[in-house]
Amino acid sequence: MTSQSSNSQATAPQTSGMWGGRFSEATDAFVAEFTASVQFDQRFYKQDIAGSIAHATMLAKVGVLTAQERDDIINGLKAIQAEIEAGQFEWRIDLEDVHMNIEARLTDRIGITGKKLHTGRSRNDQVATDIRLYLRDEIDAILALLKRLQTGILTLAAQNTQTIMPGFTHLQTAQPVTFGHHLMAWFEMLLRDSERLIDCRKRVNRMPLGSAALAGTTYPIERAYTAELLGFEAVCENSLDGVSDRDFAIEFNAAAALIMMHLSRMSEELVLWTSAQFKFVQIPDRFCTGSSIMPQKKNPDVPELVRGKTGRVYGDLVSLLTLMKGQPLAYNKDNQEDKEPLFDAIDTVRGSLMSFADMIPALVPNIDHMRDAALRGFSTATDLADYLVKKGVAFRDAHEIVGKAVALGVQEDKDLSELSLQQLQQFSDLIELDVFDKALTLEASVSARNHIGGTAPAQVEAAIARAYTRIEQL
Amino acid sequence: MTSQSSNSQATAPQTSGMWGGRFSEATDAFVAEFTASVQFDQRFYKQDIAGSIAHATMLAKVGVLTAQERDDIINGLKAIQAEIEAGQFEWRIDLEDVHMNIEARLTDRIGITGKKLHTGRSRNDQVATDIRLYLRDEIDAILALLKRLQTGILTLAAQNTQTIMPGFTHLQTAQPVTFGHHLMAWFEMLLRDSERLIDCRKRVNRMPLGSAALAGTTYPIERAYTAELLGFEAVCENSLDGVSDRDFAIEFNAAAALIMMHLSRMSEELVLWTSAQFKFVQIPDRFCTGSSIMPQKKNPDVPELVRGKTGRVYGDLVSLLTLMKGQPLAYNKDNQEDKEPLFDAIDTVRGSLMSFADMIPALVPNIDHMRDAALRGFSTATDLADYLVKKGVAFRDAHEIVGKAVALGVQEDKDLSELSLQQLQQFSDLIELDVFDKALTLEASVSARNHIGGTAPAQVEAAIARAYTRIEQL
Amino acid sequence: MTSQSSNSQATAPQTSGMWGGRFSEATDAFVAEFTASVQFDQRFYKQDIAGSIAHATMLAKVGVLTAQERDDIINGLKAIQAEIEAGQFEWRIDLEDVHMNIEARLTDRIGITGKKLHTGRSRNDQVATDIRLYLRDEIDAILALLKRLQTGILTLAAQNTQTIMPGFTHLQTAQPVTFGHHLMAWFEMLLRDSERLIDCRKRVNRMPLGSAALAGTTYPIERAYTAELLGFEAVCENSLDGVSDRDFAIEFNAAAALIMMHLSRMSEELVLWTSAQFKFVQIPDRFCTGSSIMPQKKNPDVPELVRGKTGRVYGDLVSLLTLMKGQPLAYNKDNQEDKEPLFDAIDTVRGSLMSFADMIPALVPNIDHMRDAALRGFSTATDLADYLVKKGVAFRDAHEIVGKAVALGVQEDKDLSELSLQQLQQFSDLIELDVFDKALTLEASVSARNHIGGTAPAQVEAAIARAYTRIEQL
Amino acid sequence: MTSQSSNSQATAPQTSGMWGGRFSEATDAFVAEFTASVQFDQRFYKQDIAGSIAHATMLAKVGVLTAQERDDIINGLKAIQAEIEAGQFEWRIDLEDVHMNIEARLTDRIGITGKKLHTGRSRNDQVATDIRLYLRDEIDAILALLKRLQTGILTLAAQNTQTIMPGFTHLQTAQPVTFGHHLMAWFEMLLRDSERLIDCRKRVNRMPLGSAALAGTTYPIERAYTAELLGFEAVCENSLDGVSDRDFAIEFNAAAALIMMHLSRMSEELVLWTSAQFKFVQIPDRFCTGSSIMPQKKNPDVPELVRGKTGRVYGDLVSLLTLMKGQPLAYNKDNQEDKEPLFDAIDTVRGSLMSFADMIPALVPNIDHMRDAALRGFSTATDLADYLVKKGVAFRDAHEIVGKAVALGVQEDKDLSELSLQQLQQFSDLIELDVFDKALTLEASVSARNHIGGTAPAQVEAAIARAYTRIEQL
Repeated sequence: MTSQSSNSQATAPQTSGMWGGRFSEATDAFVAEFTASVQFDQRFYKQDIAGSIAHATMLAKVGVLTAQERDDIINGLKAIQAEIEAGQFEWRIDLEDVHMNIEARLTDRIGITGKKLHTGRSRNDQVATDIRLYLRDEIDAILALLKRLQTGILTLAAQNTQTIMPGFTHLQTAQPVTFGHHLMAWFEMLLRDSERLIDCRKRVNRMPLGSAALAGTTYPIERAYTAELLGFEAVCENSLDGVSDRDFAIEFNAAAALIMMHLSRMSEELVLWTSAQFKFVQIPDRFCTGSSIMPQKKNPDVPELVRGKTGRVYGDLVSLLTLMKGQPLAYNKDNQEDKEPLFDAIDTVRGSLMSFADMIPALVPNIDHMRDAALRGFSTATDLADYLVKKGVAFRDAHEIVGKAVALGVQEDKDLSELSLQQLQQFSDLIELDVFDKALTLEASVSARNHIGGTAPAQVEAAIARAYTRIEQL
Repeated sequence: MTSQSSNSQATAPQTSGMWGGRFSEATDAFVAEFTASVQFDQRFYKQDIAGSIAHATMLAKVGVLTAQERDDIINGLKAIQAEIEAGQFEWRIDLEDVHMNIEARLTDRIGITGKKLHTGRSRNDQVATDIRLYLRDEIDAILALLKRLQTGILTLAAQNTQTIMPGFTHLQTAQPVTFGHHLMAWFEMLLRDSERLIDCRKRVNRMPLGSAALAGTTYPIERAYTAELLGFEAVCENSLDGVSDRDFAIEFNAAAALIMMHLSRMSEELVLWTSAQFKFVQIPDRFCTGSSIMPQKKNPDVPELVRGKTGRVYGDLVSLLTLMKGQPLAYNKDNQEDKEPLFDAIDTVRGSLMSFADMIPALVPNIDHMRDAALRGFSTATDLADYLVKKGVAFRDAHEIVGKAVALGVQEDKDLSELSLQQLQQFSDLIELDVFDKALTLEASVSARNHIGGTAPAQVEAAIARAYTRIEQL
Repeated sequence: MTSQSSNSQATAPQTSGMWGGRFSEATDAFVAEFTASVQFDQRFYKQDIAGSIAHATMLAKVGVLTAQERDDIINGLKAIQAEIEAGQFEWRIDLEDVHMNIEARLTDRIGITGKKLHTGRSRNDQVATDIRLYLRDEIDAILALLKRLQTGILTLAAQNTQTIMPGFTHLQTAQPVTFGHHLMAWFEMLLRDSERLIDCRKRVNRMPLGSAALAGTTYPIERAYTAELLGFEAVCENSLDGVSDRDFAIEFNAAAALIMMHLSRMSEELVLWTSAQFKFVQIPDRFCTGSSIMPQKKNPDVPELVRGKTGRVYGDLVSLLTLMKGQPLAYNKDNQEDKEPLFDAIDTVRGSLMSFADMIPALVPNIDHMRDAALRGFSTATDLADYLVKKGVAFRDAHEIVGKAVALGVQEDKDLSELSLQQLQQFSDLIELDVFDKALTLEASVSARNHIGGTAPAQVEAAIARAYTRIEQL
Repeated sequence: MTSQSSNSQATAPQTSGMWGGRFSEATDAFVAEFTASVQFDQRFYKQDIAGSIAHATMLAKVGVLTAQERDDIINGLKAIQAEIEAGQFEWRIDLEDVHMNIEARLTDRIGITGKKLHTGRSRNDQVATDIRLYLRDEIDAILALLKRLQTGILTLAAQNTQTIMPGFTHLQTAQPVTFGHHLMAWFEMLLRDSERLIDCRKRVNRMPLGSAALAGTTYPIERAYTAELLGFEAVCENSLDGVSDRDFAIEFNAAAALIMMHLSRMSEELVLWTSAQFKFVQIPDRFCTGSSIMPQKKNPDVPELVRGKTGRVYGDLVSLLTLMKGQPLAYNKDNQEDKEPLFDAIDTVRGSLMSFADMIPALVPNIDHMRDAALRGFSTATDLADYLVKKGVAFRDAHEIVGKAVALGVQEDKDLSELSLQQLQQFSDLIELDVFDKALTLEASVSARNHIGGTAPAQVEAAIARAYTRIEQL
């Protein structure tokens, strides 16, 4: 082989103790920092230690470690965890990642036995295991937050099964609905989020440990036992896949993006409803900020910020999808970039849910403003059409008649119920005085939609009752 | 009210027959085309008709339609379906969408009764129902394609449980694996895709019909009955949510993005493997094209194109997520944009899976090239380290010794097994002649990884056997 | 070489005439359709023909073609263009793409000379040239549409330099502004879009032709001459880059995404402003549709749909970015996927701009509603603070005083100007009767912001005047 | 007004000093942290201070501040900057952001005069100004890094204008090119990146200061003077747009995404080229890491990691695009989320460029391996076709002849130049002994592509020479 240079220097003073044998020069200092992950992967030290304890326990069971070695390792790891949690652990960039930092410290503490811990595994399967354990815990925390937020929604909904507001399509007043009914739409969104996370969790909760670097290991490991110790539901059934699979993180981020999408929709409505134009709802001061210039401002910061954070989680999802596109098997260094987008999505979802869980049950509806808005905006136009249909008019003709009445209302800036009987009768002489009670009443409109999923107060009450059961049964 | 203009003209010559009453001027021609959807939503005419038949059947059951009316409607709809499938149906842009096109034709055929079909529903819940029915069918088709592709993989894997190739990490030769084992990693990826689609399907298969425009309807509908007729597992429990929920489409597109990501990884490997540098695999000519300029070219078009199409589905996912961000309840016109990204993702996934399902079982491994590559690239270095460990060397020391041997190999452009015994012994005198058999043999290396998930031929055979059961049990 | 199969059949009955020599079997029918592009790339037939005419002209100049051959080719191509435009051209999937369809037809028409056209070029540089020519034309069309929309905005703004409305931050009433000023913010957004497209156009307008397949050609081509004939500003200076560069499409899609983002912001405001709660603006009926159920509905379809289409263009951008990620040089089949996301972005931007260009100048402001809203919502609170500062109060103290007055207003549901002098004086005895004229007048508030960029009518008029010059000077 | 609750408490013990007047309760502690930005916006303290100094200077010029006040403010701010840079500044979450932290500290230091600094501006225009100043500096730093990387490429290219390697399309050997030529394709990509950043910088470098909260200010500010002091090219011409425009950040992130896309393509090639299969290039050890398990591994960490980081910047772009979608004017709290995706893109691009700028000139080509690969893979097949064309064979026939020769070569696992003359002649008796020199020589193939953009060594040398000029003239 001829080449323009060679790697022929026989010795290298400072190559890594982990893998320096074939290397002739030390890692560039900038490169060392650029490629290290300990700055962000120390976050799952707890899962790393739990995984190591289970691994050591299994190695002892199959005879690779003695009982004494196992105990030394476990005690050492527990002491390290205590150090970390006391803020006394020194994380070193030159040790690259959380795994090597903890292993190096273990060897410091218990000597040569510490090195035996790495038997039958590699950082490739170790990190994949750690992330899954970490994400599993986070999913459980998010599920709890979702439930707390849902409970808050149910509380507020239960207080407002009779509160009437305009229902919108195209942000145009469409038909009257109850505020409780509207809130229950939010509940439904979040329930799907919980379901999705529970489905996702099944695929998170599989153990790659035992895949070793990529092909499995020559040691007589018992993967099922380790999996049982760590609460995994199953093992990853292929070692190449085990170390290179990041589907679970993408699936989680997709579920997280949907959660944020839902919160962004709720946020949009809260921002609208707290505007001077809507005035449907007040957000307590403790969730708002003011302006350093404009003394009158009370800004709905929390919903706005959460709406803004939606983009962030969408971006995190795109990051992971892009990351994995076109990667050949098995592990590539690219995969180190799986963590930050995942962590960012987790943190954002948790913070957003927490702030909503506090804020939503504290919302104060302006019942009169809501009702006034429903009275205006021709929300009972459909009911007037129905009134005519009941008197024998074909629906398409009734629609046309009411449309003309609305056009007059727009022209005079009056709602249908504010037009005089004479004015209404110029469009159809079938309209009689009872129209104001039977067709143009908000209560009549709302109560008539009396089937599962409909806005009638009785239905909303039933939906709330079912909802408590449904979140328990997830 | 004062304004710079008014809507006071009393008559409008050509406003829409569907909703023209309050309108004073006709829709702009460009706007009519720009806002119409029939160009793309005619795709689910079949689901629209099935939904209408079920709705009519339910309306008759609850007494809103007579049996005669129901039968007229059903017969009319069936005749229209026949017209569409015979290519004799004229789709009209001015009728906006698939729903109005079919309804208008129904009234043409059966007269005034046709208009009664729309009782107790609105286009808002109708379109949401149609998309779900359509997507449910497409998911089932995709699941079948996934299974076909998986079966092809299993066939090829079963032929290659003993075929040895280099396993890569960082695209550097890492350890020998079997080709069958590598293929089974692909199988695992696709199995998760099927699982995800099955989970997604549960949330697709819920019925919004009965939500009407947004608040439910005043008619005595029986939603559970309609749901049963259409094979829905449940009804959407809130009408506002029912018409505005597009989660199911996003969740599907996220699952589709993962499928494409997996295919892109397989594609990347196929492109590598068919290069002159790897030569691991041949793709039969019928899946390739040539160059109009370079006579020697045989391009792996299918994997390249599928890899490229990944971006398309990622984009479709981003489209839908962006679409729904910050939308207030309930239906907004924005939602019309939900269809094309969904359809594009469906079509792309189906085409890609179909081409892979044909191509994969037809792949021809170049067994000798694979083996040669595994012999080179120091793939048994880990095994040499293990050899030394068994002779009492600490793993870290063994690693260092082997690293130096590799450095010599790099310098001389030789694999470890091509170095002489003397050369090896200069790094450790524990190395003896048996090293060539025991440590540097590919077969020994592969067979030793003998646990669930490992690359040993026996394990791969067992994994294949389990795989057949697993795809049946989904 | 040993392999499980072989390519040894000597003849292949139906392999492609373009590249069949080394192939032993015909392309699979599904694969042929799956990998073809003529379904969508026929869109740039005109650019393909123009490029070929220029190429033939250059080949004749350098002596590779005779004058007669050149003329035959040019006449043949012109005839084909006429056929296409008359709808008489039969596009064939088996000829893969627009290039081969036209070349095959040329040979049909003029015989063997047709084949000489492809001398010194390849489909790789040909398609890259065609897309650039196509996109250049589309950019010019979009620039014209932007200008038309901007002119419409300026017309409306000029009519409303004195029209007062509330300016919002956080969708809370902040300070009064003029409607003309608000519209000029839209103008500024769009001006940046034009600037960006003009910058992008420079990088689009470079000629890859001459790169041939990837390495250039052995023929004595004169690239500068061809570039001049086609109006290119420069040639791509590296052949490998020339055939693999798709930056220009991504840069365009990014610019398109920003245009859509701007239109989505304008749309959001129009949707808000046309709601019953705001009632700031009316959109003429011809840009709206109604509801088949609710007779009163007049939905702002165009802005809603455009807002929804934003996601589509974002998705197109993500598609292209994903497509190009990690592609090795030079051309890969993946790149065939560059066209549809580009075309979709172009079409969406053009349709959206066209509908806005028609709609915006037709908007009808409800001047009284705007003014009423500005009077409410404490929009002059900052001015009251300024009033106090002028009387010697420190700004932070003034802010506190006004904040308390606002709190009272909220409690009583009154604006500051609706509080009595006594009520105001309980917060500061420096407040005198003149406060209602000097501080709580909308006109005073607006006129006082009298600097470049401020909302004072005089400034807005000046900004409009400058704007006409700025769009001319682009 | 009736509501379920009220804000009637007269006093609030701990509301914000900045805006507490109308508030009746203090901010929730979690909300305070969740909505604060000082954790990440302290990053542009330097720009914040520079902006404040310029603002104070302008206020003194127009008489709003006295010269003494101006000097006190400037000295105070400089002292604060020193504190920050000495690590002695205490950042307080309860002060929300970098602006209030610095302003509060200024008032601590210089008393009441400190509060006057905020005259005629608001945090809305202040933060927009700070980000632009910050980004302008970062763009300049990135431009310098791009130039450094380009210079490194030119150095390596200049050493390799005669080094022959296979050029690929579809990762199949296509035609021979020079390594220098390939590197110059990289140069071209990066040159477009610089051009784009320079165009983007024009739109970054406009000053929003003077927009105040949204409508401008009542103070007699001289915006042009402030702009001149800060080096801005122009002022934002509309105050509403000035505070709500984040186009510049999106445009930057789009340009950053393209940079990363380019680096990902270079990375992909480096990963391929350093594989055992290609062996085209060596990356010095200092840019690589090894494996803790596999002693032979030398992983191309830097290119892999950079390829992975591409997804991150794509995600950052999506975040910002999503953020701004559908936001009404003017400032909304959502916009606080503009910073982290921008910062992350900046940091990622800088780190990636820095590592590449170090690594690229240190690459060591394996000249013999490259040449061997070019000799194999039928790279001169086009040249053989040209050879036949020169002897009078029509190109399509020549293509067919060569295709068959290639098929034989595939079958026998030999390159064209390794086939015997007899073997070649069985496809065409026009092939003579000179074919091995004239057509199947790499040097002849490469040198013949001798036009601007072609791979001939002379052309590559000329391209390198031009390149130095082009980067100087940007």
